[in-house]
Amino acid sequence: MTKKHVQTCPVAEFLNVFGDAWTLLVIRESFYGTTRFGDFLENTGIAKNILSNRLSLLVEEDVLRRVDIGERGTRYEYHLTERGRSLVPVFVAINQWGNEQVFGKGHEAVHLYERSSGKKLQKLLPRDRAGNALSAEDILAKPGPGASAAAKARINAIQTQ
Amino acid sequence: MTKKHVQTCPVAEFLNVFGDAWTLLVIRESFYGTTRFGDFLENTGIAKNILSNRLSLLVEEDVLRRVDIGERGTRYEYHLTERGRSLVPVFVAINQWGNEQVFGKGHEAVHLYERSSGKKLQKLLPRDRAGNALSAEDILAKPGPGASAAAKARINAIQTQ
Repeated sequence: MTKKHVQTCPVAEFLNVFGDAWTLLVIRESFYGTTRFGDFLENTGIAKNILSNRLSLLVEEDVLRRVDIGERGTRYEYHLTERGRSLVPVFVAINQWGNEQVFGKGHEAVHLYERSSGKKLQKLLPRDRAGNALSAEDILAKPGPGASAAAKARINAIQTQ
Repeated sequence: MTKKHVQTCPVAEFLNVFGDAWTLLVIRESFYGTTRFGDFLENTGIAKNILSNRLSLLVEEDVLRRVDIGERGTRYEYHLTERGRSLVPVFVAINQWGNEQVFGKGHEAVHLYERSSGKKLQKLLPRDRAGNALSAEDILAKPGPGASAAAKARINAIQTQ
């Protein structure tokens, strides 16, 4: 993406980094454990020049770290940084949505497990303090301290309708 | 996006619907309560033809429902369907990531609240049955029943490294 979103909005800022058809596939591979250029290439089907561009962007954005492993041929590995690892709820939520809403129960393309117990990962849902699942209408958005005047007006106008 | 991902992968399928710079902004607006074309236009800054295209795609994908409200001028409203509402974990996870990782603590652009209690929404994190937060390395992916032979080979090859 060349033109960036300028709204003070966390979704827009997320899309400034990940808002294209390929970047989240690279992140998927990182979560699965892929580290090398050739493996990203093979496992995603992304074009070489786009992969190169996205890996650079993700390093620049402190989502991946380029590690020099000093080998000929495969000189670098790409590892998730702390900032990259903090995408885990996004990765899980997207993974579960695609499985449920596209493949459907019993036809999942991927199963996620808790590594230590071997149990299936539980469904990720926003919950209140008592543990009750919250749905769309249970959640209210308000401008935060970092919202521009325009963002404040925009969000307040919707929420008071 | 014109060319679709063909991998049997829930992330790829998610990106087939939402993998561009604008679609998730439309979804954000739907979660905030926006329903009308003109409001989507004003609140996202998206170009008219792209918005029109994305709304049609989202209706086709059963994420939004087009409701005829019979007025001149604003003839239709767009409401989240059940399938659209099931994006709530994705929406919350992306919102929280952008706030934390781009705006930072105390500078959030948006705060999400539990509507009934008025309390701030808790951080959405995958957890085990005992309630412990799971991080990237605590989660293991394996091919599910819907995985193609290629997807099985691809995921197994990474996970056994």
